[in-house]
Amino acid sequence: MLLQRYAHNPVLTPADVPPSRDGYEVIGVFNAGAVRAGDEFILLLRVAERPVQDDPGRIRIPLWDTAAGPPVAGELVLSLDDPGLDASDPRGVRYKGRDYLTSVSHLRVARSRDGYRFTVDPEPALLPSAPYEAYGLEDPRITPLGGGEYGVTYVAVSSWGIVTALATTRNFVRFERKGVIFHPENKNCVLFPNPSENGWLALHRPDAGGLGDKTIWLSESPDGVHWGRHRPVMGLRPGMWDSVRIGAGAPPIRTDEGWLEIYHGVDDEGTYHLGAALLDLNDPGRVLARSAEPILSPAEPYETDGFFGNVVFTCGLAEAGDGRILVYYGCADERMAVAEGRIDDILARLR
Amino acid sequence: MLLQRYAHNPVLTPADVPPSRDGYEVIGVFNAGAVRAGDEFILLLRVAERPVQDDPGRIRIPLWDTAAGPPVAGELVLSLDDPGLDASDPRGVRYKGRDYLTSVSHLRVARSRDGYRFTVDPEPALLPSAPYEAYGLEDPRITPLGGGEYGVTYVAVSSWGIVTALATTRNFVRFERKGVIFHPENKNCVLFPNPSENGWLALHRPDAGGLGDKTIWLSESPDGVHWGRHRPVMGLRPGMWDSVRIGAGAPPIRTDEGWLEIYHGVDDEGTYHLGAALLDLNDPGRVLARSAEPILSPAEPYETDGFFGNVVFTCGLAEAGDGRILVYYGCADERMAVAEGRIDDILARLR
Repeated sequence: MLLQRYAHNPVLTPADVPPSRDGYEVIGVFNAGAVRAGDEFILLLRVAERPVQDDPGRIRIPLWDTAAGPPVAGELVLSLDDPGLDASDPRGVRYKGRDYLTSVSHLRVARSRDGYRFTVDPEPALLPSAPYEAYGLEDPRITPLGGGEYGVTYVAVSSWGIVTALATTRNFVRFERKGVIFHPENKNCVLFPNPSENGWLALHRPDAGGLGDKTIWLSESPDGVHWGRHRPVMGLRPGMWDSVRIGAGAPPIRTDEGWLEIYHGVDDEGTYHLGAALLDLNDPGRVLARSAEPILSPAEPYETDGFFGNVVFTCGLAEAGDGRILVYYGCADERMAVAEGRIDDILARLR
Repeated sequence: MLLQRYAHNPVLTPADVPPSRDGYEVIGVFNAGAVRAGDEFILLLRVAERPVQDDPGRIRIPLWDTAAGPPVAGELVLSLDDPGLDASDPRGVRYKGRDYLTSVSHLRVARSRDGYRFTVDPEPALLPSAPYEAYGLEDPRITPLGGGEYGVTYVAVSSWGIVTALATTRNFVRFERKGVIFHPENKNCVLFPNPSENGWLALHRPDAGGLGDKTIWLSESPDGVHWGRHRPVMGLRPGMWDSVRIGAGAPPIRTDEGWLEIYHGVDDEGTYHLGAALLDLNDPGRVLARSAEPILSPAEPYETDGFFGNVVFTCGLAEAGDGRILVYYGCADERMAVAEGRIDDILARLR
């Protein structure tokens, strides 16, 4: 594998993160956005939590009211023998024709000097507050926009569907929401760094409900808020590690040879791998190369076992000097790990 | 019913439309965009055609090559006893893990002086030519943009998915493509008329693959090409005529009481009805009223029977003077009909 795991993985587990409120428990800290800002490594963690499940005959589902005024954390308590309840999927339930998630995620900042040992903020950075966030905020990506500003694209979930939303920040303390930038269903959005007067670019993963596969698209924007000229970039590769679905992972890195994109792919067995692609610098809709083999696949117990096993999933990396990158990745939808690689090695494999 | 059918419906059937090429047959003319331009009523027809099916043991599927250079009409001929073929849906087949449509639609202009008797152009107006149109162009809507220009939003289909694309025209002869404005999966997009310096507005219907219903969303754009601030406007109403899925129909009409939108709804039995909604003039994301009952439901044989029965589906209407509207609608995915109503009567029912 082209990425070398940190010897003391995982770097963060649910036990490291206090819940946002009394009576809640954190069940996952994973799929963090990452950036190196000044002398700090910053992670924006996805923290999944739920009411403490204290009755074996019932399920307690977190349910935020974001419709009006300050958001209020509530819950829905359902009897497990209610005939209207389908609780066969650990991630969500269907009750009387409506979908709910069994946990709600918020975003939380963690900071580090060395890139390996992180201190988690005691309070959330972004909690559900817009109506489109009622079921939570997930899988953030951080991209430098220039001038000390950062763009955070994240998955927002509500009963209306799964969308990509944008927020901006200068300090990872205060965030400004810019609304939904990609309508349902959309995930895995990464902004290209430092948009110029020529405009913004993003990779993202629409979900074709009726026809078509889960593939990676490229879109353009004059301002980061309004997007168009959507076009497909990368499809599935039958029989390979990215045969069933793919999605952009970390925001692209500019190299002399092209935009280096580390993306995830799911194979026929349902295993999530990480691999790499190289996009043309001047026309990022043109794919120059894709890695024939994954650069990281689930193998360690903290990757193969957990809330949703056999998943390595990146939302961000940090450049660590001398051409090294630290790729942060969620493991089994439950914990955070890091692996190190060299840009040159990955490019060589793509040649 | 608030809409009165024209006595001589249907106004157009497949027999009225010549195919685009030798060896093809037209199997549907339906879901036309409509506008009154000067002293003409203009329809932009969806024309579905396919290779003539001349062998009962095989299915001939139209397949355009739009990848490079001028588009070329080809076809895929499959044996009906091929074990890799699933031909159980009349609208599409699945073959070796890939979806195809059994017909490909193009857009064709028809013109009328009285709004009832139409002359169909001998040649297509818009044939598949962009990669995102390889499986056809469907369900166009026409909106006046001001200054003699019209915007045409249409569904474009390819193996990459189902999207909404935009073209503009001044004469319904030459069209300029503006690309994909809503990524997969998206249908039923209508532009609000005469966008101002404050920007463009559209209603559209994203398709939530994993979570959420098929509902109507509102989006904003500075230029018609790039769209953002997506937000849900209208959901489903369990037990009513619009309980299963909804989508915008004709572009909204400005009235003193609000934006009048005629939309389609599907009920628990799978029947497609037309109904009306009233949106706030200043904040079209605010729904003032929705019709408790449909304003048109399938009842006549030309609506209940056909390629896909029990469907009335509008993509456009024309104002016919004195507060009258002519609502053009596709019947059973096969033919075109028209029904007349009065704006005041519909508004009264919504009060």
